Amino acid sequence: MSSVTESKIDVLVIGAGPSGLMLMTWLARLGIKARIVDKRFDRINSGQADGLQSRTFEIFDSLGFGQDVWREANHMLEIRFWNPGENKKLYRSDRIVDTMPGLSRFQQATLHQARIEDHLLKYIDKFSGIEVEYGVMPESLTIDADKVESDEYPISVTLRSLPRPDAKSPHVPADEREPRVPNGLYRSNLTADSTDEILQNAQATKETRTEKVLAKYVVGCDGAHSWTRRQIGSVMEGDQTDYIWGVLDIIPITDFPDIRYRCAIHSDSGSMMVIPREGKYVRLYIQVTEVDENGKAIDRFKITPQTLVQAASKILSPYKLSYKHCHWWTAYRIGQRVGSKFNAHDRVFLAGDAVHTHSPKAGQGMNISMHDTFNLGWKLASVVKGWAKRSLLTTYTTERRQIAKELIEFDQRFSRLFSGRPAKDVLDEGGIDLKTFKQVFDKGNLFASGCAVDYGASIIVAKHQAIENANGTGAVATIGKQELAPKIPIGMRIPSYKVLNQSDARPWHLQELMPSTGAWRVVVFAGDVLNPSQFSRLSALGKALSSPSSFLNRYKPEEDERLASFFEILTVHSSPRHEVELLSLPDIFHPYSEEYGWDYEKVFVDDVSYHEGHGQAYASYGIDTTRGCVVVVRPDQYVSWIGELEDVDDMERFFEGIFQ
Amino acid sequence: MSSVTESKIDVLVIGAGPSGLMLMTWLARLGIKARIVDKRFDRINSGQADGLQSRTFEIFDSLGFGQDVWREANHMLEIRFWNPGENKKLYRSDRIVDTMPGLSRFQQATLHQARIEDHLLKYIDKFSGIEVEYGVMPESLTIDADKVESDEYPISVTLRSLPRPDAKSPHVPADEREPRVPNGLYRSNLTADSTDEILQNAQATKETRTEKVLAKYVVGCDGAHSWTRRQIGSVMEGDQTDYIWGVLDIIPITDFPDIRYRCAIHSDSGSMMVIPREGKYVRLYIQVTEVDENGKAIDRFKITPQTLVQAASKILSPYKLSYKHCHWWTAYRIGQRVGSKFNAHDRVFLAGDAVHTHSPKAGQGMNISMHDTFNLGWKLASVVKGWAKRSLLTTYTTERRQIAKELIEFDQRFSRLFSGRPAKDVLDEGGIDLKTFKQVFDKGNLFASGCAVDYGASIIVAKHQAIENANGTGAVATIGKQELAPKIPIGMRIPSYKVLNQSDARPWHLQELMPSTGAWRVVVFAGDVLNPSQFSRLSALGKALSSPSSFLNRYKPEEDERLASFFEILTVHSSPRHEVELLSLPDIFHPYSEEYGWDYEKVFVDDVSYHEGHGQAYASYGIDTTRGCVVVVRPDQYVSWIGELEDVDDMERFFEGIFQ
Repeated sequence: MSSVTESKIDVLVIGAGPSGLMLMTWLARLGIKARIVDKRFDRINSGQADGLQSRTFEIFDSLGFGQDVWREANHMLEIRFWNPGENKKLYRSDRIVDTMPGLSRFQQATLHQARIEDHLLKYIDKFSGIEVEYGVMPESLTIDADKVESDEYPISVTLRSLPRPDAKSPHVPADEREPRVPNGLYRSNLTADSTDEILQNAQATKETRTEKVLAKYVVGCDGAHSWTRRQIGSVMEGDQTDYIWGVLDIIPITDFPDIRYRCAIHSDSGSMMVIPREGKYVRLYIQVTEVDENGKAIDRFKITPQTLVQAASKILSPYKLSYKHCHWWTAYRIGQRVGSKFNAHDRVFLAGDAVHTHSPKAGQGMNISMHDTFNLGWKLASVVKGWAKRSLLTTYTTERRQIAKELIEFDQRFSRLFSGRPAKDVLDEGGIDLKTFKQVFDKGNLFASGCAVDYGASIIVAKHQAIENANGTGAVATIGKQELAPKIPIGMRIPSYKVLNQSDARPWHLQELMPSTGAWRVVVFAGDVLNPSQFSRLSALGKALSSPSSFLNRYKPEEDERLASFFEILTVHSSPRHEVELLSLPDIFHPYSEEYGWDYEKVFVDDVSYHEGHGQAYASYGIDTTRGCVVVVRPDQYVSWIGELEDVDDMERFFEGIFQ
Repeated sequence: MSSVTESKIDVLVIGAGPSGLMLMTWLARLGIKARIVDKRFDRINSGQADGLQSRTFEIFDSLGFGQDVWREANHMLEIRFWNPGENKKLYRSDRIVDTMPGLSRFQQATLHQARIEDHLLKYIDKFSGIEVEYGVMPESLTIDADKVESDEYPISVTLRSLPRPDAKSPHVPADEREPRVPNGLYRSNLTADSTDEILQNAQATKETRTEKVLAKYVVGCDGAHSWTRRQIGSVMEGDQTDYIWGVLDIIPITDFPDIRYRCAIHSDSGSMMVIPREGKYVRLYIQVTEVDENGKAIDRFKITPQTLVQAASKILSPYKLSYKHCHWWTAYRIGQRVGSKFNAHDRVFLAGDAVHTHSPKAGQGMNISMHDTFNLGWKLASVVKGWAKRSLLTTYTTERRQIAKELIEFDQRFSRLFSGRPAKDVLDEGGIDLKTFKQVFDKGNLFASGCAVDYGASIIVAKHQAIENANGTGAVATIGKQELAPKIPIGMRIPSYKVLNQSDARPWHLQELMPSTGAWRVVVFAGDVLNPSQFSRLSALGKALSSPSSFLNRYKPEEDERLASFFEILTVHSSPRHEVELLSLPDIFHPYSEEYGWDYEKVFVDDVSYHEGHGQAYASYGIDTTRGCVVVVRPDQYVSWIGELEDVDDMERFFEGIFQ
């Protein structure tokens, strides 16, 4: 054992799918010593996840590539419903908007997972040069419980380099009926977990290398068959149904008129969802009969692209469906499960499919998995760096477990609707009637946008705790004054409206001013700065923030850190742009540098633009245009606290709970 | 001489600045055998051009990278005017919008030339793999006049590989007063042309290699000191003034309040323009006194960053100005000149600064140079491929010479305004009064957007020839019916409004549907397709276009060409989106493929979108919503012809004039 190399690392990430890579964006950006390993040898380049929520685009935009993905993606604007009519003939029963207008500057869209991973990898490389170590998997993990609250390395992991798999990889279906079309069965819950088998094969191969890694933190982003989950004794709890669905990525040749719209189709031959994708592709989710003609449970080997397209044709009848191009296919059994534990000692964390699984039809999986680690990443980096107290980490579990539960409830409702047969008439209780379906669908759509997430009270969400959300993250030091900005709900991501740069009149979405740098934003809605008494209030705020004892000056990163300050002050006033001079505002709102002069990128105005209309930010946020208010926004764009311009002490107390 | 290698090429491009690279985008895209050489060894990475017009962004967008440049660029929204008041104190006298709202979806912006070249190079590489041959320059060029109308190689060019320059390169100013700041003096008209010197030095160096290239076409994009221009006996005609201006790229440290706005400043100490740029930089154009204290013409060696910032400070007084960062600087004498010839035998062409020079202040140079070759490229490719008649090439000179002349007139007016001293009062005839200044400025801004270009009648612009534009490009075969779409002027680039895809409701700017693929667009404004008599008209058009004798079927590229068809039919109807079924329209408007099914990317509708408003395309174009019309758009987005849905014969005649 003495020849095994041993090394130390701050964070070890297991699994390089979207959730592992999203975690790495924060670690890379903030200069954390981290490694990321994945048992796969090759990156996926077809199939898997494709749905992208509005909120996911907002996050991508905060990383600088939201607009690129947006342009490349297929946009889904309208959902169309098809049902059997009285003569049993399929007809278009309704159309609704997909993403509620005004919710976000981005709408639900589709682009395959590999392209998303490309962008994440490019970002990680740009900020850190860290590369994914492919073909490496952990084989043991121990936590020294005595060290978990110390600054040592409490976790010990053995990593094994795997032998490159031969042609009989799990990517190729055992029966090789469709050898040229990649499929996702090896990840499906219809097939057994191959993790142990892979490891045992590797251990049996003499020449594979192992190494010992001592880590401060480990994050398991290793998917539905998570190895990490088992190490910390987290158990998936929930149900598995008998509903089996097939998924087919094809370029459809069809006379079905709505093939480029997202469709929910119920027919007497089963249900189907149509998800149009980029590059002429369409993904079909096809209900597969649970039992065969003889009443026996269906054999998964009977599911092939051919049987799927036959099932789809039957559902779509009298419309025709065929294809020449199929990219990928899979099948799965509907189930919704959540891990019993999200972490061990707040040292080992689980994220993404490793801790919640559900059916893929609503396009949530990749999104919520990335949101898990977008939530965890900045917290982990802040604690590893010694900036924040370790208690910050408990909010990962409280915040994301709540979302996982909501996801599961959403998916149960959503899947049941889809897998049920259509109602014959109002007295048919076993069927799903169109009205119920649409109601659930509409409500679900808000959840599915990712913009409805509302985190409970904690040290980073200064709000009154509703009983049902009480999640034991300790006393709340201060309560924000929600009434000052009723449409900026504390605990939710800050909605975005356009404001203009005071210094050059360029319009920006407020969220665009909050890239994922790791900084907290103190957004000063300065009100009418031309009103002398309001100007006095602003001056007093400026003075308090500039004081040596203010949080701005008390909590500071070291000189050589990636982050110059934990706080960025952004000002949005409501006076006419033409009547305000930037330099008349207190210096702290547009800081001076010996090297670069005044900072022209901090003061904005809620005024009309020349080419992009009027953002009406104050009205949209519900903020008084004279008196304004101050809003504290977390590094991940969720709202922490709201107060008056005078409430600096309260803000201080809030930050004291987090920083050290 | 027998050891000299000899090779054949379709097009040789001399000079790899923006105009040469833009030419290459077309040649790369359409698979033309081409080479591009440049006498420089290193790409520039600071300074030079920075202004980007609205039209340039539209062109970039047609190449797929417009949005990237747009996001990276500094946007200029408002222009501010400063003048000496009654007490001689500088005051902000006015503010106007920079780009007229509604003109284009892009506004005037700034980004340095090297970033633009990056995008062009990436595009060229993507489509052709062709790389710029740096350190190579031509030393002889002969045209065999007997072969110019044949399909042979009438041009013979000797290329010489240059020795890599030593540290004393022309980039380093002779006096080395500011050795660490790159400057542009070596390209300035204040310094002598070094082209011959470079060539003679190379010829004196034994080990430099030469090769002989036989070319069908040569394009000189080799700048103000163009070698190619001299070979074809084109002479620069026009004036040089005594006005000398300095240019300084700095991060300014100043209390001047409008430093992030584009400013025109007139003071009793001279004039200055402020052009804010990306990355905190600002470019200052500073008037330098023509004569020194002793009445002697100023020595260019007296111009340094220090003297320039001193002059700027004097103009800006009482505001202070200094800097810690200077990227680049240069100085030039104002002059406006146009080449006497734009081509020789329509075999050798000149483009960009090689054939028109002017002062850089209005941010036109890089734009108009790229527009020259954006005009030439698709024509050249079409002729080289044998698709179009050679007479198409004559339109390059007629179209672009007209623009060069307009540019020069614009610049003369514009520069004179700037270099003149401000008027003391209304009786002061030698001075420039504020009102005149603003009027000329406003008018100039439309020209400066690049969207006002209006090409004269020719075989590719089917309009009545105004006397002053008569330019001898031969008889016009047909005249378009301008009255059917009064706001789509024939000869101008098609304005862009949003329309929705009939098949998925996604909004697109009409121009976005016209990427630079080389295809002509036949835009069928189909009117109200739910009206039975209009539907009959559309069906008849569909039938005529589908006929074997239609231009669609008569003029076709070979199977293996980059372009599947010379023509793309785009339909925009005016009926409500929800009431129209794509498949009810004649097949030719949404063609069927055995491999990909129906084409869902050809039919659009002028209707309201969910998230981006209503484009109101018909109203904006002035088209009758019932009857519609047909608009033919060139591969470079300029409008060629307009007619009724019945005018297929007329369209045929139009295309007969071009294709062979």
